Amino acid sequence: MADALEDFYAIIPAGGIGSRLWPLSRADAPKFLHDLTGSGTSLLRQTWDRLAPLAGDQRIMVVTGRAHRAAVEAQLPGVADHNVVLESEPKDSTAAIGLAAAILRRREPDVVIGSFAADHVIGDARGFRRSVRDAVAAARAGYVTTIGITPTEPAIGFGYIHADGAALDVEGASTVHAVKSFVEKPDLDTARRYLDDGSYLWNAGMFIARADVLLAEIGRTKPELLAGIEELAAAWDTSSRGAVVDAIWPGLEKIAIDYTVAEPAAAAGRMAVVPGDFDWDDVGDFASLAKLQSGGRANNLAVLGDGARILADSSSGIVVAHSQRLISLIGVEDIVVVDTPDALLVTTSANAQRVKGVVDALKVSGRGDVL
Amino acid sequence: MADALEDFYAIIPAGGIGSRLWPLSRADAPKFLHDLTGSGTSLLRQTWDRLAPLAGDQRIMVVTGRAHRAAVEAQLPGVADHNVVLESEPKDSTAAIGLAAAILRRREPDVVIGSFAADHVIGDARGFRRSVRDAVAAARAGYVTTIGITPTEPAIGFGYIHADGAALDVEGASTVHAVKSFVEKPDLDTARRYLDDGSYLWNAGMFIARADVLLAEIGRTKPELLAGIEELAAAWDTSSRGAVVDAIWPGLEKIAIDYTVAEPAAAAGRMAVVPGDFDWDDVGDFASLAKLQSGGRANNLAVLGDGARILADSSSGIVVAHSQRLISLIGVEDIVVVDTPDALLVTTSANAQRVKGVVDALKVSGRGDVL
Repeated sequence: MADALEDFYAIIPAGGIGSRLWPLSRADAPKFLHDLTGSGTSLLRQTWDRLAPLAGDQRIMVVTGRAHRAAVEAQLPGVADHNVVLESEPKDSTAAIGLAAAILRRREPDVVIGSFAADHVIGDARGFRRSVRDAVAAARAGYVTTIGITPTEPAIGFGYIHADGAALDVEGASTVHAVKSFVEKPDLDTARRYLDDGSYLWNAGMFIARADVLLAEIGRTKPELLAGIEELAAAWDTSSRGAVVDAIWPGLEKIAIDYTVAEPAAAAGRMAVVPGDFDWDDVGDFASLAKLQSGGRANNLAVLGDGARILADSSSGIVVAHSQRLISLIGVEDIVVVDTPDALLVTTSANAQRVKGVVDALKVSGRGDVL
Repeated sequence: MADALEDFYAIIPAGGIGSRLWPLSRADAPKFLHDLTGSGTSLLRQTWDRLAPLAGDQRIMVVTGRAHRAAVEAQLPGVADHNVVLESEPKDSTAAIGLAAAILRRREPDVVIGSFAADHVIGDARGFRRSVRDAVAAARAGYVTTIGITPTEPAIGFGYIHADGAALDVEGASTVHAVKSFVEKPDLDTARRYLDDGSYLWNAGMFIARADVLLAEIGRTKPELLAGIEELAAAWDTSSRGAVVDAIWPGLEKIAIDYTVAEPAAAAGRMAVVPGDFDWDDVGDFASLAKLQSGGRANNLAVLGDGARILADSSSGIVVAHSQRLISLIGVEDIVVVDTPDALLVTTSANAQRVKGVVDALKVSGRGDVL
């Protein structure tokens, strides 16, 4: 195994609930705390284990909500106190990643940070790490760098990265391209065209950059937000942290890093992408979870849940069994059944994206007890 | 209201579990103990209430399994001890109805008995009672009489009674026909032909006859079974009942009354039918329960269960909520969801008849705890 990268620090923003995976994912049991692969460990822990050989386990920072602190530390017994950044309320990814980058830059001015979602699934950890090494080389050269997954099908559930055809010349990196633009989730025809074209990659939400470069990008688009982040970072390792957090955090603008960094940097030619040939999935809904669990086989019933008691006849799709009940399916195809002690979801793969709507409806109807 | 019929005794065989309604119906909670109409009372109690104005509540005999005695008596607080016949093990309808008839004949030689399933739904109790009065008149005239429901659609889930075109001349009855034959559940084309023909009626499993006439029919086809029934009946109201039951009951042949009485009597011209124009359903599976609950409306979601918490979007079919969980459905059509504390069923109306197969599979796989 290759050595850890000396100047590299990994950041894991562990924030989103994963509403499209309700009622499995909940406010108090967000997606990243679940074992969605049947591996026996949570997605968060798998993310950590994937990064530790690159960064060293003393150089992985987790940004999470105060409510999840205990659960996160239980998943990551090796995490150091100074590597846990707690959010008093969610402020989206610019604040989360920006604050981590700002804290780390004060501790270590030349640090290269890499931010990786806590709740994605990657099949080939070695392939992933090869791509990160290339991305770190590009980051050292001054690029805000992302890793774009080489598409294997015309997926409509992911955003895409349009890469420039010509490779950049970056020392220590095998293949790096400039990013022409980030594009939204396409329709099927467009996704097919992207697949044929070859210069479109799936956006896996990975950002690798020198901390100072990343912060400068935020400052270009959102100077007030950067000022707040820097004020927090300046106080972070001091006794005034609590008071400054209370004063500053509530006023931070809530905005995704895609809009503050990725898109503007791409438009200005400062964004690079490393093509990644490893299996990756954001497990965005139960349809993708079904596909992941069934290994892509059709007419197959995927089952997730320890000690699940399933009796299925002529049925396909996915059953998530988080109760101890016997579940019987007869003649239901592409079905999604998610069985938990206090809530049951029955839908189909085709309707998987609509699950978020249920969560919204539960919020407005005052049934937050099952969220 | 018309007076009770002096020579009439009602029999309610309360035996079958209703396996096609699993996991709602169970060995310890059979179909007849459930409220399937949302009326607030069990099907058994509704059957009793329908019959009491005809027979008087001291003249309704219930035949049920020993295990259900307490539940039956709780549903029917007015039932007299001498009107409860307990089976030590299920022996199908010839033994159940035959024993009741034999006991009643010894108590009252000229009695006319009427046997009515404990777990059917009838919308119009007055129409039902009018038909029973006609059937009792035909029974007094010596016929084994049934009530055949006038079909309202080409149903494939019921057996049919083929009535002779010409009416019989029976004193005190408005319309009685001879039965040409009983026919099995038809395919759809045949069912359509039956509906157009007009001389086919749904077999609702109702039998009205003089007790001695019914017993004579059993004796013609199954003399050994009748001998056992008579031996039991002779001992029934004596101190030797227990010993005789132990000696005789286990050896009784297990056979439906359709084969011992209805079909042979029809073939011999001794069977009559009264056409019934009232709403009737045997609620044989969740598809018919869905239809019953939704009033026949398509694209409607029927919900059964006190305090059900349902959140449905673009879904139709039926949800039976016997747990307190929130149930969310998205984009599932003609779905059947039956949610109980220890077992969950998800299927479709089209597959409703296959539910019995699950029960059979659970039996052989040793998961009898949920049966």
